[in-house]
Amino acid sequence: MSTPLFNRVAILGIGLIGSSLARALKREGVAKVVVAGDRGDVPARALRLGIVDEATDNLALAVREADLVVLAAPVGATGAVMEIIAPALKPGAIVSDVGSVKKMVVDMIVPHLPAGVHLVPGHPVAGTEKSGPENGFAELFHGRWCILTPPPNTDPLMVEKVAEMWRRAGMLLQIMTPEHHDRVLAITSHLPHLIAYTIVGTAADLEEQLSTEVIKFSAAGFRDFTRIAGSDPVMWRDIFLNNREAVLDILQRFTEDLTALQRAIRWGEGERLEELFTKTRAIRQAVIDARQA
Amino acid sequence: MSTPLFNRVAILGIGLIGSSLARALKREGVAKVVVAGDRGDVPARALRLGIVDEATDNLALAVREADLVVLAAPVGATGAVMEIIAPALKPGAIVSDVGSVKKMVVDMIVPHLPAGVHLVPGHPVAGTEKSGPENGFAELFHGRWCILTPPPNTDPLMVEKVAEMWRRAGMLLQIMTPEHHDRVLAITSHLPHLIAYTIVGTAADLEEQLSTEVIKFSAAGFRDFTRIAGSDPVMWRDIFLNNREAVLDILQRFTEDLTALQRAIRWGEGERLEELFTKTRAIRQAVIDARQA
Repeated sequence: MSTPLFNRVAILGIGLIGSSLARALKREGVAKVVVAGDRGDVPARALRLGIVDEATDNLALAVREADLVVLAAPVGATGAVMEIIAPALKPGAIVSDVGSVKKMVVDMIVPHLPAGVHLVPGHPVAGTEKSGPENGFAELFHGRWCILTPPPNTDPLMVEKVAEMWRRAGMLLQIMTPEHHDRVLAITSHLPHLIAYTIVGTAADLEEQLSTEVIKFSAAGFRDFTRIAGSDPVMWRDIFLNNREAVLDILQRFTEDLTALQRAIRWGEGERLEELFTKTRAIRQAVIDARQA
Repeated sequence: MSTPLFNRVAILGIGLIGSSLARALKREGVAKVVVAGDRGDVPARALRLGIVDEATDNLALAVREADLVVLAAPVGATGAVMEIIAPALKPGAIVSDVGSVKKMVVDMIVPHLPAGVHLVPGHPVAGTEKSGPENGFAELFHGRWCILTPPPNTDPLMVEKVAEMWRRAGMLLQIMTPEHHDRVLAITSHLPHLIAYTIVGTAADLEEQLSTEVIKFSAAGFRDFTRIAGSDPVMWRDIFLNNREAVLDILQRFTEDLTALQRAIRWGEGERLEELFTKTRAIRQAVIDARQA
């Protein structure tokens, strides 16, 4: 176990990502004390799991004396959470987050950020379709990429502390602008989820007998889409609402490509199909080679 | 090990499915002799793997004296293969297949079928994105569904023999018409593959730097699509060309649903998004409950 980076870390939203981070922080000794802030019975569940030292539904209380505050609730709640915790933030503290969109989240945080509190937004690109503190695990981050999007003029020491925390959790680090992050993630994450939600929704609307058979014979490909489309509804609602432009932009490209493929099928253009399917196979190989398969 | 169902089974096309079936037949003692017929160096590779008793690139020789012939090459080759093997088929033999489309395949087989030879088309709904005899494994079929689409007036005893073979390989059995099979599979398999091929193709066409980043950060959802889009190009070309109507029909529904979702994002209709994402989560649960997850 290495030297702690922080005395006290508050994780607000102790769901899949928040609870996985809590587990990693404790296992690697990154923080002396880990505090969870959440709503309803979630703080009690987190305590019962033994993954945090303290837990409360009072968010202002949760962040008191914290050296690092990690926002890990659905991104739509960011503004409201910041409004509650801002007066209680310790001078010199770092506020970070794990949101899947960055530009809008930064825009929601900045107006509430007290002078002397640092902002280092982050996005650990890892996850499963499951939710809640019971489903988290420390290894979730292992070998995956974490993207940090610090505003210009952020103290590099603060960026490095957050980077080191994720490194100790097993992640690879990359820094980019929020705008670029949102464009890349629109392709690698938001569009795939949008498509999966759509296709599973299309199947759900079929007449009942057919819908039952779709589930029965789902091993032929559909199954993988249901896994993605089983992701947290509120989290994903917020992502689409908060990365609208980038998502609509890549969706437009996708739709064009789909129309071209549809036309190739209608006109029986076998060579064109085979050519595309060969090209995509090479991308699969690249993903395997990058150890992200 | 149970009583053999067949003296001699010929598997034409000893790729992922064919070689997995060969392994299952030997392991379960379903056939006394399993013969592989394929092209190029594939017969030699199958022999080297020790998964078949005999192997040849002479398909007519492969089917000689076989009680059961299983066509397991890409479906586009069906007519050509039947033309070669028809004169060599033993009277009373059963011809079956593993094709992912059924109506067109039956139409390709029937004109070549000698009198006294039985036809029991089948589709084991199982697979991975990998190809070739090296990647097959006997457990591939375990707990999955096999659909048989025998023409009316097929001898029920012959249907039962093929059904029992797949049962011994671990599959659950269902009988339906070729038309219905093609409609169900268009949704559970062909549309998901079409969408995955498209989205991975869209990403491949991005400017180079972005394309590299898409691979790097693929763990956020894109990765799962690359797996599906890594499937055999020739096999999938043939599927789309041979189940055109059903695929275009379900694609039309999908496109409508996608357009509606696109509009909901553009107009910031959060409730509508959350409602859909909650409905799809229930479908995921149904797939888990059906033990097909």
